[in-house]
Amino acid sequence: MRFLLIGDIVGRSGRNVIKEDLSHIKRELGINFTIANGENAAGGNGITRDIARELFAAGIDVITMGNHVWNKKEVYNFIEQETRLIRPANYPPGAPGAGMNVFVREGAAVCVINMSGRVYMSPLDCPFRKADELLRQLSPDVKIVIVDFHAEASSEKIAMGWYLDGRVSAVCGTHTHVQTADERILPEGTAYITDIGMTGPRDSVIGVDKDVVLEKFLTQQPRRMEVASGPAQLNAVYIDVDTDTGRAKKIERIFNL
Amino acid sequence: MRFLLIGDIVGRSGRNVIKEDLSHIKRELGINFTIANGENAAGGNGITRDIARELFAAGIDVITMGNHVWNKKEVYNFIEQETRLIRPANYPPGAPGAGMNVFVREGAAVCVINMSGRVYMSPLDCPFRKADELLRQLSPDVKIVIVDFHAEASSEKIAMGWYLDGRVSAVCGTHTHVQTADERILPEGTAYITDIGMTGPRDSVIGVDKDVVLEKFLTQQPRRMEVASGPAQLNAVYIDVDTDTGRAKKIERIFNL
Amino acid sequence: MRFLLIGDIVGRSGRNVIKEDLSHIKRELGINFTIANGENAAGGNGITRDIARELFAAGIDVITMGNHVWNKKEVYNFIEQETRLIRPANYPPGAPGAGMNVFVREGAAVCVINMSGRVYMSPLDCPFRKADELLRQLSPDVKIVIVDFHAEASSEKIAMGWYLDGRVSAVCGTHTHVQTADERILPEGTAYITDIGMTGPRDSVIGVDKDVVLEKFLTQQPRRMEVASGPAQLNAVYIDVDTDTGRAKKIERIFNL
Amino acid sequence: MRFLLIGDIVGRSGRNVIKEDLSHIKRELGINFTIANGENAAGGNGITRDIARELFAAGIDVITMGNHVWNKKEVYNFIEQETRLIRPANYPPGAPGAGMNVFVREGAAVCVINMSGRVYMSPLDCPFRKADELLRQLSPDVKIVIVDFHAEASSEKIAMGWYLDGRVSAVCGTHTHVQTADERILPEGTAYITDIGMTGPRDSVIGVDKDVVLEKFLTQQPRRMEVASGPAQLNAVYIDVDTDTGRAKKIERIFNL
Ligand SMILES: [Fe+2]
Ligand SMILES: [Fe+2]
Ligand SMILES: [Fe+2]
Ligand SMILES: [Fe+2]
Ligand SMILES: [Fe+2]
Ligand SMILES: [Fe+2]
Ligand SMILES: [Fe+2]
Ligand SMILES: [Fe+2]
Repeated sequence: MRFLLIGDIVGRSGRNVIKEDLSHIKRELGINFTIANGENAAGGNGITRDIARELFAAGIDVITMGNHVWNKKEVYNFIEQETRLIRPANYPPGAPGAGMNVFVREGAAVCVINMSGRVYMSPLDCPFRKADELLRQLSPDVKIVIVDFHAEASSEKIAMGWYLDGRVSAVCGTHTHVQTADERILPEGTAYITDIGMTGPRDSVIGVDKDVVLEKFLTQQPRRMEVASGPAQLNAVYIDVDTDTGRAKKIERIFNL
Repeated sequence: MRFLLIGDIVGRSGRNVIKEDLSHIKRELGINFTIANGENAAGGNGITRDIARELFAAGIDVITMGNHVWNKKEVYNFIEQETRLIRPANYPPGAPGAGMNVFVREGAAVCVINMSGRVYMSPLDCPFRKADELLRQLSPDVKIVIVDFHAEASSEKIAMGWYLDGRVSAVCGTHTHVQTADERILPEGTAYITDIGMTGPRDSVIGVDKDVVLEKFLTQQPRRMEVASGPAQLNAVYIDVDTDTGRAKKIERIFNL
Repeated sequence: MRFLLIGDIVGRSGRNVIKEDLSHIKRELGINFTIANGENAAGGNGITRDIARELFAAGIDVITMGNHVWNKKEVYNFIEQETRLIRPANYPPGAPGAGMNVFVREGAAVCVINMSGRVYMSPLDCPFRKADELLRQLSPDVKIVIVDFHAEASSEKIAMGWYLDGRVSAVCGTHTHVQTADERILPEGTAYITDIGMTGPRDSVIGVDKDVVLEKFLTQQPRRMEVASGPAQLNAVYIDVDTDTGRAKKIERIFNL
Repeated sequence: MRFLLIGDIVGRSGRNVIKEDLSHIKRELGINFTIANGENAAGGNGITRDIARELFAAGIDVITMGNHVWNKKEVYNFIEQETRLIRPANYPPGAPGAGMNVFVREGAAVCVINMSGRVYMSPLDCPFRKADELLRQLSPDVKIVIVDFHAEASSEKIAMGWYLDGRVSAVCGTHTHVQTADERILPEGTAYITDIGMTGPRDSVIGVDKDVVLEKFLTQQPRRMEVASGPAQLNAVYIDVDTDTGRAKKIERIFNL
């Protein structure tokens, strides 16, 4: 079974790439299941119901989130109902929405987990212990588990890869908006990459207008961040998972322009 | 003229890869000038005179550093004399050593600059203004300028790429120890990559023994970091620069095992 | 000459205390010059022209700021003209407004400096070197220099006290919104306190509604911060400075309710 | 019943003050139970068995710790046996030692809790939820509960005060090494202060040699921190608690030199 994981979709620019290219990519690569990080889908930060629907309609099966999950207040109105939207599982207990869900595709159960790192980020619950807890809850019938680990520090992401190696099908990082070149199958069968990258305006600073960001760095004064214009890229990986064992057999990067 | 830039060399593991593979790589690719980040060369952090000599002897022309430059106290004994060792230029004025130097190779002047980011790092002087200052000091005869921007946040690194586009030959990031897949020639002729990656033990967490790092994340107690064992990788990029204009024509990643 | 320094004025609550109590306090204590931190004066963050005028009208001679100086966009419209409003001097060169100004009161020149720390804050220019630079610019005729050092870490604030001891009349901290009990005259004659405290709603979390802050800590989700209601406190220090030498002779805390 | 809480004891300087002054202070004030923060007792960071014994012998009943609890490796050898040494309770489960213990004094049960903040500190478990958990475990017979909340940010400390108001006898902050002037009895009967302060060398930067700290701030290079010399201060609070209800009736600061 072949999975497509798409890096943070930024603004209209990123959504347009998805609408234009996703169905074609899925067909060409024979994708069975598509997961995309949508934490920046609405104007650069957060998500709305309409935009979630737009992305599902374009062929995305599950949307994962990250530190920007709560940015658009509207998310509180639909996150409890929208089972295909997954937010970091290690928010404190009681947070709206779910951090894990199981989907069925072609007879196979597919578990999607979203977690957030803590290094240089908010002090959420320990993502390592949360992963243990979530996997304990899972029925042994569920062989395929895909983890989007949304984190800043390369050390925390790589550590999570090793921690879950052999226990999940894939640990794929998001959040830095830059695709890394370290994709591999870890020794016990888990597909790993430190960051899938970003889907949105290429000539930008992680999706944002570069002149605004530069002004911010130079003046250290607040500036209103705006999604950049110009040509857009799609960053993703596809992963082949053995349906019977849940082990990954292949991971390959996609860096489309 | 073809430049090789090597990502952070970690411990004996990384030095051994250099000694075994560098001359072969240089010959095969026709490298004219080799720069390597050596901030982790001595036992995982810092550098000593012997290790610097070892790296020069193995074919490295210039060593750049980063936040770990001062870790081995011995560096204070030779950094002023060793002109081929460059530390981040944006340490406060008066810091030992130099943050920029000009070398001559095959009749061409080659300027190497090392700078450090500030996001999630120590509050050094502004690297953007420091870059302006360094470039102002440079004779117009020096066309080729290679910048190792040692920084954590992808946003700060990409912003530096745009800031220096057309003013230097290359802006290459180091510090995360994970190679990124976003190498490109920016519109005004500057070669760019967010991170060159790491040269050292592959089955590790950024070079460090993975069990120790995991224990640290799980217990939040201090642990003695040790360089990992096992197979080692070499991460680098090579860049073709037009000697007359200083503009980059090509950048390609190397991820050797 | 007796100076009154008032800790961060928070919202309408803080402004009301000023309007009600300041003239009385000044009369009773025989205050000659009043400086107040106004970075939270407008609705909890930033300042507007009207609010600055309101504070000047209530008897404040100079307003200093901090990390929230730019929060109300309106500040850009009047900061260049309003010479009695001082923002942290260690913003990069070119920032609107001034970080130091000299006033004359009863025949004596009074220099007011505002600086920001960097530990756990934005990477502004080095406040220690900036202090050197500002003091070098000052005419030797100016004996009295009052520094509002707006910083988070106790270590950075105390270090600044020692750094400027004997070179300025006072180094008084702001930003934590909690008055410290370590006021003293340092050996070379500089009055010092780590934090003057906060002028605003007492039954709050640093001025903000406590239920909202608690919800934020417990959920790790964003919440709209609102200035708290209820009884308000005034936090300040008064300092006696020898007009001829600029040395401080006395510092005393005020914690009024 | 009268409690004495002593702020972070720094090095030999701080220990000497304790040995010289504590018995006298206890007698004069009629102290029944003494708690001291000992995270910096051994050479500036951490604690050893001998130093713990030295402090107990000098009249301290319970030692609380903080982020430096693990600095001296020796602590692992005795923290499990030494029931009078309490480390932050919100380290991940399985950490050696205890974060809470109950002692009996004059027929009354006294619970001592130590917790660490997370803002600008390591991402331990949520201290607010941990407090709930610890208090749930407590027998209703235990009326007196004293909390040492070791934290950096004033907001997190004040929030904890409000969170536990009426549920514990006292929430006293430590870690900044600067005594605050905001001691009070909160509306539901909990004694509160943001920081008790530091017991150790006065003419220092939070206990450390001021020249070394200044050099570190100015050069941004690592420097070996040394406990300062010179006159030492003792920072503490005493709190009167109603033995029947556990409510605090009085809190007063001590700033001895
Ligand atoms: Fe993102
Ligand atoms: Fe993110
Ligand atoms: Fe490194
Ligand atoms: Fe580094
Ligand atoms: Fe403030
Ligand atoms: Fe502030
Ligand atoms: Fe301490
Ligand atoms: Fe501490």
